[in-house]
Amino acid sequence: MQTLTVELGERSYPIVIGPGLLTDPQSYAGHLGSGRILIITNDQVAPLYLDKLQSALSETDCSSIILPDGEAHKNLETLSLIYDRLLEGRFGRDCTLVALGGGVIGDMCGFAAATYQRGVVFIQVPTTLLAQVDSSVGGKTGVNHPLGKNMIGAFHQPRAVIADTGTLQTLPDQELRAGIAEVIKYGLLGDAEFLLWLENNIDKLLAREDQALAYAILRSCQNKARIVAEDEREGGKRALLNLGHTFGHAIETLLGYGQWLHGEAVGMGMVMAADMSRRLDWISQQDCARALTLIERAGLPTRLPAGLTSDDFLDAMGHDKKVLAGKLRLVLLRALGDATITADFDMAALHATLEHYCRQ
Amino acid sequence: MQTLTVELGERSYPIVIGPGLLTDPQSYAGHLGSGRILIITNDQVAPLYLDKLQSALSETDCSSIILPDGEAHKNLETLSLIYDRLLEGRFGRDCTLVALGGGVIGDMCGFAAATYQRGVVFIQVPTTLLAQVDSSVGGKTGVNHPLGKNMIGAFHQPRAVIADTGTLQTLPDQELRAGIAEVIKYGLLGDAEFLLWLENNIDKLLAREDQALAYAILRSCQNKARIVAEDEREGGKRALLNLGHTFGHAIETLLGYGQWLHGEAVGMGMVMAADMSRRLDWISQQDCARALTLIERAGLPTRLPAGLTSDDFLDAMGHDKKVLAGKLRLVLLRALGDATITADFDMAALHATLEHYCRQ
Repeated sequence: MQTLTVELGERSYPIVIGPGLLTDPQSYAGHLGSGRILIITNDQVAPLYLDKLQSALSETDCSSIILPDGEAHKNLETLSLIYDRLLEGRFGRDCTLVALGGGVIGDMCGFAAATYQRGVVFIQVPTTLLAQVDSSVGGKTGVNHPLGKNMIGAFHQPRAVIADTGTLQTLPDQELRAGIAEVIKYGLLGDAEFLLWLENNIDKLLAREDQALAYAILRSCQNKARIVAEDEREGGKRALLNLGHTFGHAIETLLGYGQWLHGEAVGMGMVMAADMSRRLDWISQQDCARALTLIERAGLPTRLPAGLTSDDFLDAMGHDKKVLAGKLRLVLLRALGDATITADFDMAALHATLEHYCRQ
Repeated sequence: MQTLTVELGERSYPIVIGPGLLTDPQSYAGHLGSGRILIITNDQVAPLYLDKLQSALSETDCSSIILPDGEAHKNLETLSLIYDRLLEGRFGRDCTLVALGGGVIGDMCGFAAATYQRGVVFIQVPTTLLAQVDSSVGGKTGVNHPLGKNMIGAFHQPRAVIADTGTLQTLPDQELRAGIAEVIKYGLLGDAEFLLWLENNIDKLLAREDQALAYAILRSCQNKARIVAEDEREGGKRALLNLGHTFGHAIETLLGYGQWLHGEAVGMGMVMAADMSRRLDWISQQDCARALTLIERAGLPTRLPAGLTSDDFLDAMGHDKKVLAGKLRLVLLRALGDATITADFDMAALHATLEHYCRQ
């Protein structure tokens, strides 16, 4: 078991990583509010882990709500179901919400916790690799709007994140690979040494070797925690974490949420960001190929679905939060392991990248 | 013109009070985000002030959304209209939301600002006395749920509050009186000197004398700002501001939002809190009568509508946020000008008060 503390002053919190944590009552001790507990989960995760979590929390007054699974349900309507449950159950301001599931559950549970009675305690129990390395760190919470992803949300830090690596053994292959996309992102954006480790160990991750997974989660969380601690409210440096996301969000918007997994869209987004960086001559053809190869070896898509046009794509990118004062800002690569956020690039390179991938 | 600063570290903001501020471009200078502006107002206020505000902001890219008026529309559905407008208009994270109207508009606009893209700038231009002395100070934002008032919300501080006293000349009598209820609240809960001033000047307030109104707003804001600065996130002392509110919210819940104005319910709630404090022998019969008389002189209701039962009332109070760990906490009076929040009271006094007012 390893513990990492995300340093945010009075909002600091631990991320605990290891096998068997979910079923251990000690994992939750000291992190719960004084009142009742509502576990928020979905219909895929509940059959696997809800009973186990409830047993671990059996000392407390604990109930649960099971939501439909998937990004398509990460919206105000599903959020309303949580509010209804909390109010019908008369949960007080001293309650604790526990997110049991992937990033979608974490984001919705976190936003419910941020806004129920203007803020209650919440704990994350992420059961996907993506949630363990990404959405459980940083305090971003929210839901989608038909016109854009994560457009409605708040910053709200969890009291603790319990990342049980054992839950990854039941994860579908596609979701494991989507999680690995975010892991690769940390290497690409700012940790060349980790990128090298990934090139040497990607097969172990795909084979779900415990030690490799735990190391990848720890190193990813360390990378993310360092960046978030420096820039909690996303003024500057934190935006680097969006490597692959502006392209990725556009893909999700165009396809409709739920077609591709978020991590798959981010993986494809990183391919496009690397390609554009190469066209700008910021990275070499060789480095671009290294990035592409690693993403390919992770079993992630490296081509867009047929039927997208570069005009639609550009339009969808305009709805992204990274558009500041009408100017498109992108996270691009200065080198492998060194990303930068900038609005200062030749639009021709963007057009060429979009044309290339939309025509493939 | 007077300026009061609410001291909250990096979230400090000015409340500017005086006639003619709404139409003066200078009022907004330095407080706007770098992006576009959306004015959020309602169908009662828009015909009176929207053109004027837009003229004052004419240097900037400014548009507006006009919502239906009233507490009954302070809900997730109306909030969605704001999100839709922002996303359809492609408002960026650098936008500014301006609340033009009363407390309902301020609360909804503030919550939209707290949650749109995880937080954007907002400015309050309150046009009711209630909003000028209450909801524009303290950063509370939110919407109602069918099962409880303000149950969904966030703390989000405005960048500035522009309280134009001139707008009170067009305020309906009933709304003026509802605002005076909150003004009286500040005297009752912690400012005996101000309470005396109110007893001597209540007729001037009702006659809308400029100087009296400006003084009452300033003193109320000073009282509230002092308490909020000590307790931004409502851990303890801030709860004193809920004098009359637990009873009042129950009234609003039982009648359905929109039957009584919020200030009227609070006025009635203060009558009940004073009555209960007298039954507990915490204040004298004389002091209780003083409070009742002032509230009566302000033209506020001092009786409940027919048909409420004390059981329903108690049940509705159970949904209030002030219920901590299942125990009902109330703000009661130790003396005129000295309120306390406590769960340590004889329930018989509460029952007697409810029986008395429900049977009247």
